[in-house]
Amino acid sequence: MSDQMTRITLARRPEGTPVPEDFGLETGPLPEVADGEMLVAVEVFSLDPYMRGRMNAVKSYAAATEIGDTMTAQGVGRVLVSKAEGFAEGDMVMGTTGWASHAVLKATEALKWDNGLPPSTALGVLGMPGFTAWTGLREYGRPKAGETLVIAAATGPVGAMVGQLAKAAGLRTVAVAGGADKCALAREKFGFDAAVDHRAYDDASSLRKALAEACPDGVDIYWENVGGKVLEAVIPLMNDHGRVPICGTIAWYSGVDGDTDRLPMVWRSMLTKRLSVNGFIIFDHWGGYRDFLTEVAPKVASGEITYLEDVTEGLENAPEAFISMLSGGNMGKTLVRLA
Amino acid sequence: MSDQMTRITLARRPEGTPVPEDFGLETGPLPEVADGEMLVAVEVFSLDPYMRGRMNAVKSYAAATEIGDTMTAQGVGRVLVSKAEGFAEGDMVMGTTGWASHAVLKATEALKWDNGLPPSTALGVLGMPGFTAWTGLREYGRPKAGETLVIAAATGPVGAMVGQLAKAAGLRTVAVAGGADKCALAREKFGFDAAVDHRAYDDASSLRKALAEACPDGVDIYWENVGGKVLEAVIPLMNDHGRVPICGTIAWYSGVDGDTDRLPMVWRSMLTKRLSVNGFIIFDHWGGYRDFLTEVAPKVASGEITYLEDVTEGLENAPEAFISMLSGGNMGKTLVRLA
Repeated sequence: MSDQMTRITLARRPEGTPVPEDFGLETGPLPEVADGEMLVAVEVFSLDPYMRGRMNAVKSYAAATEIGDTMTAQGVGRVLVSKAEGFAEGDMVMGTTGWASHAVLKATEALKWDNGLPPSTALGVLGMPGFTAWTGLREYGRPKAGETLVIAAATGPVGAMVGQLAKAAGLRTVAVAGGADKCALAREKFGFDAAVDHRAYDDASSLRKALAEACPDGVDIYWENVGGKVLEAVIPLMNDHGRVPICGTIAWYSGVDGDTDRLPMVWRSMLTKRLSVNGFIIFDHWGGYRDFLTEVAPKVASGEITYLEDVTEGLENAPEAFISMLSGGNMGKTLVRLA
Repeated sequence: MSDQMTRITLARRPEGTPVPEDFGLETGPLPEVADGEMLVAVEVFSLDPYMRGRMNAVKSYAAATEIGDTMTAQGVGRVLVSKAEGFAEGDMVMGTTGWASHAVLKATEALKWDNGLPPSTALGVLGMPGFTAWTGLREYGRPKAGETLVIAAATGPVGAMVGQLAKAAGLRTVAVAGGADKCALAREKFGFDAAVDHRAYDDASSLRKALAEACPDGVDIYWENVGGKVLEAVIPLMNDHGRVPICGTIAWYSGVDGDTDRLPMVWRSMLTKRLSVNGFIIFDHWGGYRDFLTEVAPKVASGEITYLEDVTEGLENAPEAFISMLSGGNMGKTLVRLA
């Protein structure tokens, strides 16, 4: 057993795409183990796109990594020393190990991996990425047999799981991936019905044409992993009442497309703040109109709910009133009263 | 009773903001009434922002108005001739009359207005706008006492109703409106807790500062009526798990801010297609992880769900593997295995 611990640190904050100089490699003594904790020799740890966000100074949904801190990661390893009830030397455990040879884990934050499956699966297909796919698809994708799902980064661990779960639920699954190899992988290994190579298309509109061919019935679920060109290509293909779970915006992690493009700011905020954004058209809900009248008309009659009308007299004056309303010239509900 | 009908038509499609020449005024004989229909003398009709969208050739959620067709509108009027069961001469009815002195309504599409309230309320506070506010707030806003709601076009018929319903539900309500008069109206007549005049601020960031002062606890519900500068100002103020019902994007109805700004296309599509877009972070859902393992681990063990790993050997090679992954250099789940 080595008495030294090696770790990768954040040496400085990257500008745009990270470069090797942004990382440091440090060696030091093994950490102390307190009651309720265990020392683990890491066997394998995970690299995930979300880690790019942690390298920025800005707080996202999680605290930023500080300069000099170990890069964050989930990992799996074997217990060397345990001062935690329920964990013994030799146990395989998963937890937030960081990019490091050793880690001290609290018992409350460690999970014993004793189901017979390879420990590495605890980081991918059965770890955070697989769980993300399973949760987001049922909760926010709400798949129905016969629908069409599009997903980019389709051969990544989230994409591969979303595709397989959706296919099993009876959906047509369409992968977007970078390069012919990944497209073949998507179709052959992960069972996607079609795969579109985004590198073969320079702009959103040509990518959109290729996607439209792969989605003859439109798109019901767009699982958002990337943002950028794919988002722009897919949105016009969405069917009414479609769903867009936003899981990542990797195209925008290292910077945005320019000051004039406000979409990255809005879209990334929707992810990090976990917003629910719903377009709705009242004509879809018209069946509830009598319930509304029953509840609200008495409140209008009593004055509990007040209103204001902005009345224009004469049909011939309607265009002018309409033009004025569009620029905010009205005060209250705009109406035209006929002579 | 006049034997002539007057109507306002779409003379040509507007470019940007409509001008009077885009409309025509036509007079002709009264229309015929078939079985199941009634002829109505219109007393008052409604002007609403959504009508701007109908003037474009592009299909939105409703068919475009054709050149020469009567401009669409809901209206209220008195029955002159009825060939419809349940409706008699002299009844007051509401329906889709258009911008016109007379209309033929089908019984199935007409509603008798006999509740004693002024007929004009059928078009505003108790009509489509009020019903929109009532439905969208409960279904997509999901207000909770103590939260903060922001709404633009706050003195319009939708805004005024949303504000009053939210206030009654115990929320802090913050109006955005154009000009000091409308801000005073929002506070004094409709009971908003605060009102911000968007015309007093040139850009989104100065408007945001004013809104931040009016919303000391952040924003939980942003009711979207306008898009544009207000949207850009509000999004960074949203609290986690906030809700954004998209009801309109009037700032973008007459055109967008330039080719480089993709936000209007995406945001308007979310409205017209009634999309549900949800940002989510898996760490909020971690309580379900064991359920996931119970369901999915056996499928991984059996091979029903397949996976692929992209393993880099050696801690010191983690930065390079991470950089490569961010540009799509990996195939499958990216992992680092320690020696």
